This record gives sequence, structure tokens and C-alpha cells, in this order.
Amino acid sequence: MSDPIALPAKNLEHVFYPQSIAVVGATRVAGTVPHDIFANILKDDFQGIIYPVSPKEKSIAGVKAYKYVLDIPDPIDLAVLVFPSNVCHLAMEQCGQKGVKSAIIISAGFREVGAEGIQREERIKKIATKYNISFIGPNCLGVINTDPAVHLNASFARQMPQEGSIGFLSQSGALCTAVLDYAHAKHIGFSKFVSFGNKADISEIDLMMYLKNDPKTKVILVYLEEITAGSAFMQAAKEIILDTGKPILVIKSGRTTEGAAAAASHTGSLAGSDEVCDAALRQVGVIRCATIEEMFNNAIALAYQPLPKNNRVAIITNAGGPGVLATDAAISEKLVLAKFSDQTRDLFKKHLPPTANIKNPVDVIGDARADRYKIALSGALKDDNVDGALVILTPQSMTDIESIADEVSRIANEYDKPTYASFMGETDVAAGITILQKHSIPHYVLPESMCRAFARAFHFKTMREMTYNEPATFSDIAKEKADAILRSAIKAERKHLPEEESIKILEAYGLPILPGGLATTKDEAVQIAEDIGYPVAMKVVSDDVVHKFDVKGVVLNIQTSQQAGAAFYSIHENILKFKPRAVIKGIYVQKMITDGEEVILGVKRDPSFGPVIMFGLGGLFVEVFKDVSFRIAPVGPISAGMMIRDVKSYQILSGARGKKPRDIKSIEQCIQRLSALALDCPQIQELDVNPLIVNDEGMGCFVADARILL
Amino acid sequence: MSDPIALPAKNLEHVFYPQSIAVVGATRVAGTVPHDIFANILKDDFQGIIYPVSPKEKSIAGVKAYKYVLDIPDPIDLAVLVFPSNVCHLAMEQCGQKGVKSAIIISAGFREVGAEGIQREERIKKIATKYNISFIGPNCLGVINTDPAVHLNASFARQMPQEGSIGFLSQSGALCTAVLDYAHAKHIGFSKFVSFGNKADISEIDLMMYLKNDPKTKVILVYLEEITAGSAFMQAAKEIILDTGKPILVIKSGRTTEGAAAAASHTGSLAGSDEVCDAALRQVGVIRCATIEEMFNNAIALAYQPLPKNNRVAIITNAGGPGVLATDAAISEKLVLAKFSDQTRDLFKKHLPPTANIKNPVDVIGDARADRYKIALSGALKDDNVDGALVILTPQSMTDIESIADEVSRIANEYDKPTYASFMGETDVAAGITILQKHSIPHYVLPESMCRAFARAFHFKTMREMTYNEPATFSDIAKEKADAILRSAIKAERKHLPEEESIKILEAYGLPILPGGLATTKDEAVQIAEDIGYPVAMKVVSDDVVHKFDVKGVVLNIQTSQQAGAAFYSIHENILKFKPRAVIKGIYVQKMITDGEEVILGVKRDPSFGPVIMFGLGGLFVEVFKDVSFRIAPVGPISAGMMIRDVKSYQILSGARGKKPRDIKSIEQCIQRLSALALDCPQIQELDVNPLIVNDEGMGCFVADARILL
Repeated sequence: MSDPIALPAKNLEHVFYPQSIAVVGATRVAGTVPHDIFANILKDDFQGIIYPVSPKEKSIAGVKAYKYVLDIPDPIDLAVLVFPSNVCHLAMEQCGQKGVKSAIIISAGFREVGAEGIQREERIKKIATKYNISFIGPNCLGVINTDPAVHLNASFARQMPQEGSIGFLSQSGALCTAVLDYAHAKHIGFSKFVSFGNKADISEIDLMMYLKNDPKTKVILVYLEEITAGSAFMQAAKEIILDTGKPILVIKSGRTTEGAAAAASHTGSLAGSDEVCDAALRQVGVIRCATIEEMFNNAIALAYQPLPKNNRVAIITNAGGPGVLATDAAISEKLVLAKFSDQTRDLFKKHLPPTANIKNPVDVIGDARADRYKIALSGALKDDNVDGALVILTPQSMTDIESIADEVSRIANEYDKPTYASFMGETDVAAGITILQKHSIPHYVLPESMCRAFARAFHFKTMREMTYNEPATFSDIAKEKADAILRSAIKAERKHLPEEESIKILEAYGLPILPGGLATTKDEAVQIAEDIGYPVAMKVVSDDVVHKFDVKGVVLNIQTSQQAGAAFYSIHENILKFKPRAVIKGIYVQKMITDGEEVILGVKRDPSFGPVIMFGLGGLFVEVFKDVSFRIAPVGPISAGMMIRDVKSYQILSGARGKKPRDIKSIEQCIQRLSALALDCPQIQELDVNPLIVNDEGMGCFVADARILL
Repeated sequence: MSDPIALPAKNLEHVFYPQSIAVVGATRVAGTVPHDIFANILKDDFQGIIYPVSPKEKSIAGVKAYKYVLDIPDPIDLAVLVFPSNVCHLAMEQCGQKGVKSAIIISAGFREVGAEGIQREERIKKIATKYNISFIGPNCLGVINTDPAVHLNASFARQMPQEGSIGFLSQSGALCTAVLDYAHAKHIGFSKFVSFGNKADISEIDLMMYLKNDPKTKVILVYLEEITAGSAFMQAAKEIILDTGKPILVIKSGRTTEGAAAAASHTGSLAGSDEVCDAALRQVGVIRCATIEEMFNNAIALAYQPLPKNNRVAIITNAGGPGVLATDAAISEKLVLAKFSDQTRDLFKKHLPPTANIKNPVDVIGDARADRYKIALSGALKDDNVDGALVILTPQSMTDIESIADEVSRIANEYDKPTYASFMGETDVAAGITILQKHSIPHYVLPESMCRAFARAFHFKTMREMTYNEPATFSDIAKEKADAILRSAIKAERKHLPEEESIKILEAYGLPILPGGLATTKDEAVQIAEDIGYPVAMKVVSDDVVHKFDVKGVVLNIQTSQQAGAAFYSIHENILKFKPRAVIKGIYVQKMITDGEEVILGVKRDPSFGPVIMFGLGGLFVEVFKDVSFRIAPVGPISAGMMIRDVKSYQILSGARGKKPRDIKSIEQCIQRLSALALDCPQIQELDVNPLIVNDEGMGCFVADARILL
């Protein structure tokens, strides 16, 4: 097993909690970035001391300016650079000389503009290394820390967000402006808000690890356009979720650019790297979101309310239609409508009007006021059969929206169960929504989104409990045997290992191999066949023959020793006919299993995430339907089980149409052993086990054919 | 072929354009429905005359009141009834005597409250029939017509919506209040807005047909909890879309209640009725939406902008991140990023800054102001390679949001191509969004929703052009032969037709049958086998044997006349052994096709939509993966082709893995002939063709087995 990757431990304390800041390149011209950054720090009530640095000005916004950083008489914790990119390195050099240890480089004009920019960025990095400066950027919007202890808005965002428990990290600066505006309107607060731009030094991983230990942050949101260090990202995410339980939500864009699509159709590869990325994120329990809206829908649920213990929800509504819509959505999202206890039902019967529906969804009827919502919500949350409540309101003529919002907020916060709300409409319900938001009741425009968020929270809770399992260690692995084969192949500059060598490597890692042996004479062939029992298959073994079927080098379903003898000769004759110059090493005689299910296992290497294990059912399922699942090695027992269940064709293994279930446990074993092999032997670029023949439950499985590419 | 169903032609003119209204049951108590309805009509500027009818009051809100409807001295076009349900019939009776021809019954307390309510509703219906009164409701919110010619708000909604081109019909009144609030905030206007409640008289179909001919309505939206008259609904939708091109958007809730799920798992039926409903809606080109938000996202696109001629979009953005997100979404939704002409590219190169991305998505860069948006948008729309434009804006420090909104609106309306916009954020962009909305530029909070709406509009345009095709008429159908078999079976009270009879009925409808014949002697069996050619299969024919395989009554893959003779005897012996008392009619000798693809066709009857045709691939695909598609008969040639392509396993027929494609045309023929049979013979409750064996392209297909249930 590979050692965990050592995660970088940048000291980001001075970035988020500086006592003194120099804004290098500040100007007096309002409406420009160099001015706005300085003005934002100042006007947004920074708790430390701020020094403008400007070659031209004596003061900016009433604060004394210094010509150079070195002129500042006091120590500087953080430099914010808004200097033009072509002279930015000069400012950086001065910061180094001044002893500044942290910087935010706002300036654009680096890596993102091509060759010249890359040079500039490298120059900056060199200076940073020389002086041991950690920096955010370049090409970013800046950093916001809402903690009242520092209250830092070192960004050119139009507004500082309110304090909250969501940490937001974004590779795109422009997206940040939209997110801040969106969040502001929804009263969503942030703990830290970082645009990290080109991440020339401090990366999303450094920032995530910082938020891991930040007591102000409960949920971590990341917007990424590329994940360059996939393994480190997984490691960090795993540590954060495992150690602190903080959920991580990721938007990873660039899923399906025309370019990626064209490449995939060109190479014909099964896994676009986005599929691998998707599998990797899920594997460590990261919640991947498709849109900003979905991300915040989930984030507010996770940040504001406890996780649901189970998936039994109570829906409370003052209108039948939306109740039906919510039920549809809840069931689609695999939630369960809670069955109320007799006690709860009696309570509802007694205190709700006779026309109310006291089953779930609870319909408190169109003329319901706050008292009825109170009865329904507190009754539901008190019930042991209920894991969470979903409250729906439509603005009808008698609806006292604000009182209901107050009541819902008050009751919800009395219970250690999640309550979410959907007050449908917009203008009429606005004041009510604001009350909910201020009391940390997650609010959703649509009941459907509310149900989805609840399901996502429950899924996160389940995953957090499940996915972390130590990869199994195998005491019976003969690594040296595999090594020897690989060494000799590499020495001989062979890229393709033949079947028999590939199978030996798998055997060394304890994968069960279909019984068989190499025969060089007819009598040997017959003997092997007799030993392993009929039916058998026979195949030519020759370095010169790649596609054995094409040259009739395979005979299947041999039932008798007479047939075995005949096959030995016929294969030789066929090779002589179709590949007269091929050197035949022998004929491989192999047991045939005729009623097993064929599955495919594979290993490939992803440039970002490393060794990827692939699983799918044989035949049409992989080739036509691309019905495959992925995991990044190491794959533990639970992940192995989940990746088998992930494919749509799983039902065929689990016993569809009254058939016996197959031996899934044995596949799990093979996947874990393959994972160990992939980690131990980085020389292996690609590996296919095709097929692995799986018998009925308890009867094991067998590698029937394999192929390794170095 | 069945005749089109005669759609009811209710005269709704007086409901929407009354010159005089009596509000029966009006009161003086503000905040109650009986008062608010009256007050709404009055204060919302009704252009006709309104008469309050109240047994107790002399006047209401300054208007002279009448004790009874009959007391009103002038003729009444429309009565609005807000009388208690238990005395509502009295008011209705008076309306009848007064000669009122239209009514809206707001009152609740009818069918929705159970047995007593049903009685009340029936009583009302009887009176309505007697006096020929058309009425909306009961149990509804009312009717709104924004046309300035009448300006009618006969509802107890909190506010009257603005004028627009969307017609909205809802079975749920409470949902209407949420929709009105939602639409108000988004500046979405309506032509007609109807809550039709229990639809005891006027149904959604009547209302849709009215909106068909309403020049103020461009798009029809319907919220339904059940579709009772499925065939009529389809007929109406088809006529509307075909004759007027008006899109119909439907939310049909109750997709997956626990009840429906439990029922489906209990009966084990493949098609829950929701699947049939889904197929039916798609078949006539109705756009089914899952949520209110999705419905309005589509509705504004369809109501405000022309339909895209093709799917090549230009994305214009001032931020890279959202551009990537939009590209992902566009590609996922099967849109294509337009390739600009050289001319357009030159234009962009000349007038946009050098750092701008002039490829698609066009990135006008963070500091872009209205002038750059103008260049990009007008350039794109002018380009013949572009079918529509998607404009994204993030609120950056230099962004002149309102000017950009003005410019986008102005340019968009100069071209006969659709332009949609997504100004991301909320508060900062609010004024810009309002400008867009006022100029009928569809606006979306998320670029992803914008792309989805564009794709939906393009899909609608494609469907509208494609789906209407006359069902084929077949001159070679021997209906009388089928009739004779069915008649005799019904006479004999047989529910299950045996294979040979089922096959004869299919043969009468021109489905190709696998060659074969019934043998009563060994020599006959051999002769038939020789005539049709080997391999053949042989099966027992006996009314007493249902499961032929269980009693070893089938022998497959017979290759010689010797084997055929032996099989004849062995089948007889097996029956004698396993079913000694069975009367054997003979042995059916049938051609075997060993390399065909097996598909399944079926007919069943849906209580709402009538005869449903089912298609799927044999084996695992239908049984395990439920990979089936449905269409409602009659099925024309294009629908037949589409239903084959609808299944996920279609690739197996179209030539996956280098295989030759199968004869899909011949399956289309079979589907259409089955559709004709299903319509002609309503006695057939269920029919399965399992399997239909499909040969390679041009080589036809054959029914190998069939089963009919009466």
C-alpha cells in the first residue's frame, strides 16, 4: 500500500488574520481595482493597520502613503499586490526584503495570457521561494474573512458578505462576484471567501486544509476548473471529512467541452477523465454539484441544520398540490414518508380541523394560520418515526406568513432534527423567507429542491459513515514474482505482456486463475485436459500471434481426449496456414466454465488521480452501454462492494429472473487485489482482466484472460 | 383506424368576456372569500357591470346589492357563486331561471370532501344540464382575464397578474397563489389564468380548446393532478399544436406516490400508468415539466422569443467560469457551439480587445461595458452559422449592468433569432434583469437553466415538425378473420387464446409469421420440416398445456428428418408422462432462426389513454432493465421509428460492435399493424409478441410466439 501523500502545510494565518497590511500599488482613482481594494479593506472595518504603498501619492483616502514597502516603519503581515504584472516582481522583491511572509497578488496578466505571462509568474514564484513568502493568486479577486476579530475584505468585490459558517473557495474570480450577490440576497453568510486565481503558490488544497482547522467554518465549498493534483485533493478531502465531519461541496466545470467530447470519441476510451474525477470525488465523500444553485441549496442545509439520522420525512403543507409535488420529489430522491405514531395521529386529529389530512403529507388546509403549523411541526418533530420535517407554505388569503415563519423557526431550533422550508411564490412570501433565513432555516423556492437537499444531506451522512474503510492487506502476495516478470519485459523493451505472463502476475497477487497448463505435445495436452476435467479450451501461445481467434488459434468446448488431441493438431495446422512464420511456444489448455457470468476488471492511470480501477459486466454492457464504474486505488472492501453495485447491470449478478446470485464477494476480493497490484507496480500502464468468470455465490470466480500494457 | 374523438365545444365566451356579472353570496366582511371575490372584480377595473347578490345586504362596497339573482333587472352573462356548498344548488337553480348561461363556482365542500360532497356536486350538475349552464369549478380560485377589453379578476387571488401571452390552467387553486406571486416577481404576464378545481363541467380540455383560438394566448400551461380523459386530452393537444403551433407545457403530479410505487411492485407490471402518461404527452408534442420553475423557464422562452431554427448557439460572457459552465450545460443538452464565419471572427478581432476570446464562447472580458456586448451580440446574431444567442453577465466592478441590459434587449429584438440572458447574482443585477424582462428577453438565474430552456425550445420545434404523421393504412388486413377467432373465443368464454390462434390473428393483420405447420403424424411433421428447411423447432399444441417447456413439450434446433421424427414421438411421450390427460391437437413444426435479434411487442389498455403499444428488446432488457418504450395507438410511421429508438438497448439493433444493423423498418411495420389491430379489436385486453425475431437489414422479421388475453 502506498503511503499517504504528505499534504503541504502552508501557514495561512497571516493571509486570513493579518495585523498589518500593505496594499502595494494603491491609487486614488475610485472605480479602479488598485483603489477599490484599499478602500474595501478600510471601509469594511479592518481591525488591524493598513498601509497604502504608492510611488506617486502622499496619502490615499486620508491614510498616509509610503513610496516603497521598505519605507513602512512597522512590520507587515500581509502584502496585497495590485501592481501591473510586468513590474509585479519588483514589488515582490521588496516585500521579501521587508520580511513579509504572506501576499495576495490581485494583478492579472500572468499564466492566463500565455508564454510571456508564464515567465512573469515563474519569476514571482522564484522570489517567493527565496524569501519564503506564501501567496494567493495571481489573477484573483482577493480574500475575505468575516471573523469580527479581523473583519478583512481584501478583495475588489462590490460588497462584503455577512458572517456565516460557509467557507467558499473559487478558481474563478468573476464567478465570485455573482456568488456574493446571489448569497447576499438569500442572507447566506460566509466564514472565509477566497478567490485563488492561478494558484501559483497557495492551492485549493492548502486552503481546504486551512478551513479544516478553522473553527468558524462548518461547510467547505470549492469551485474548480481543473484538479491538477488529484491524489492530494482526495487525501485532503478524506482527512477533512474523516477528522472533522465537515462536508465538502465541489463544482468542477469543464465536464463536457466540445474538445473533451471530440477527444473521447476520437480515442474511443471508456472513461473521459471527468468520469474518473467524478468517481474520485464520490469515493472520498465529496458532494459534487452541477450548478451554483444546487451547491448553495445543499450548503445551507448542511451548514444550518443537523444531519438527518435517517430518511423518514414529514411533509407539512397548507395546499394539496404542492404536497403532491413534494411527495413525488421525496420518493424520487429515495426518501420515505414517515408513518406517524398513533400518539401523533391522535394529537393531529384532536387539534387540527376535521378537513385536514393528518396522514403524511400533513395538509393543514388553505386557511391555516401559525397555530396549525405549530401543532403539525412540533407533533412531527416529537415523533420517533420522523427524522426531519419539510414545511411548505403557499400564500393564501388567510395565511399569516410572518407569524408562521417565526413559529417554524422557533420550533425547528428546539429539536435535534433537521427542518427545511419552502414558502412558495416570491414577493408575498419574501418577508417570511427573510425570517426563516435569519433563523438558519434552509429555504427553497421549490419543494422539489428542498427534498433534493434533504436527500443529499442524508446521503452525505450515510457516506461519511461508510466510505472510510482501510484497504485490506494481503499476506499472500508474491510481489517479487510479479516484479521479475515486469523487469524482464522492460529490459526486453516489450510493451505488451502476453496472456500467460499477464496471468502469472495476477496469480502472484492472488487472483484466482482458471486451471490450465501449457502443452508442447499432443499427449501433454490430453494429460492436462484430463487432469483439469472437461470441457476445456485450447489456445495457441506465441509472441507472434496477437489476435488468436483471427488465425483460428483457439478451439473451445473440447469434451473428450480424442477432441483434445485433434485440437492440438488443428491449431498447429491453422497457425502454419495463417501465420507460417510464427514461433509457437505451445498450446495452452484451460478449463472452460460455461454457465458463469463474465465480468471485466481493468486498471488504467489517470494523470491527476493515479491508478484507476474499472469494473463492468462483460459483453454488451461494457462495450455498447459503457456501463462501468471506477474507483481510485487503494480500493477498500466497502468501496469494492459499492463499485460493483454502481453499475446498472448489477442486477444480473445479484440474481435477476429467479437465478441464483453470483459470487460477488469473490469479485470484491479480486478488485482489492488488483488495487494492490496497481499501487505496487507503477510500471503497469493498463491492465484488462477480460473476462473474469464469476460462479454462483460461494463458488468463486476465475480469471480467464488478461492483458497488461507497460 | 378510429375516428378522432369529437371534442366538446363549450361556449366559454361568457366566462372570459362577460358584460355583466352577478356575484352570488357576496358579503361585506373584508378578508373573506365572498367579499374578496367581489372586491377584486370591482377594484381590478372590470369593464362590464357587476351586481352583488346577498340575502342580507343592501349594498356592498358602494354597489347596490340584490337579494336574489332573479331580482337583477338586467341580463347576466356570468354568475360567480360563493355560496355555502350545502345551499349552492339553490343559487344555481335561480341562475338557471334567470337565464344565466355561465358560472364560476368558487365554493369548496364538494367531491373533494367525500360522499356527501359528491352528491352535492351531482345535484349542481343536474341543474346545470337542465338550464344548459357551463360552469368552472367547484372548489377553485376563480378566473382571470387580463385582456383590457374586459379586465376580469373573478378570483380571490391576492393580486391580478399583468397582461401577457401565457395562458395558465390549474387543477390546484393553492398552487395558483404561489404561481401568481412567483410570476409577479419575474414580470411574467398572463393572457388567461384559470383555476378549474373539481372540473365538474368545464374541463382542462375545454379550456385548452378555448385557448387554442384565443389570439391573446401564445403558450398554454397546465397543472394537472390526474388526466381522466387521456384520449381526448391527446386529441386536443395534437389539434392545438398542429393547427396553431402553440406549445403546451404540462406538470402532471402524482408521478411516484408511495401508493403508486407499492401498487407497481405488487402487480409487477412493467408500465406504471405514469410511464404511459409520459409517453402519451411526448407523442403529441406536449412538453412535460417537473417543477413550476422548469415550466416557467420554458414558457418565457417560448412566449417571448422565436423558436430556434437549429441548435447552434453563440455564448457571450464577461467571465470565463460561467462561460465554461454554460458550455458544459449546452453540450449536455445536445446543443452545438456555433462556429463563427470568418467575417464574424474578423469583426470581433477588430472591435474587441486583444485579450478577449473571439471564439465561442465569446469572452468580452471582465471590464466589458455595453459597447462590447453590442459588438458581440449583433455580430453573433448576424452570422448565418448562429441560430441563437445566450448572453451571460457577472456583476464586476466596471460592468454597466443596465446599459448592457438595454443594449441586449434592443439588439435581440432586431433579429428573428432567439436571444436569452443570464445576469448572474441577484441584488446587483436586479435592475438589469427587470429591463430584460420588460423587453421580453427570457432571463435565467443560472446559465444552465438558460441552456436547458433553449434546448427544450429547439426540441419542441423539431417535434412539431416531426411527430404528426398519418398512421399508415393497410389494404391487406383481413379483419374478418381476426374477428371470427375472437368471436368464437368470447362465445366459448375463453380468456387466453392459445399460441396458434394468437398467431392467426396477427397473420390476419399482416405480421410476418415464422413458417411452420401443424402435424398430426410423424410423416407430416417430417414433411413440414423438409418444406420449411432445417433447423426447426417442434412444440406440442394442446388447450390443456399452457407452459409447454415445463412438460418437455418443446424440442429445439432439430437438424435432420431423423431428429424430426424422433422429436415427434418424444414430445408425445413427455406429454403422456407429465400431463397424461391432455388432449393433443398436434405438434407445431416451426422454422428456427438462430442468429436473429429477439424483440418484444405488446398491447395493453390504459384506462385513460386506451390502447398502448409496447416495444423492447428481448431477454434481460425488458425483464431486468425495464428498458421499454410506449406509444398510444394509432402509431404512425415516425412514432413507430421513434419508439424503437427510444429504448436504451436500441444500439444493439442499429449495429453495435461491428455487427450488421437489423431490419428496423420491418419492426416499424409490425408496430403499426399491431396498432391497427389494437384499435380494431377492443376485445383484446393484452397481447404479447414474444419474441419477434429480427433479421439483418432488408431480411425482415418473424413472429415466433404470441399470446392474447381477452
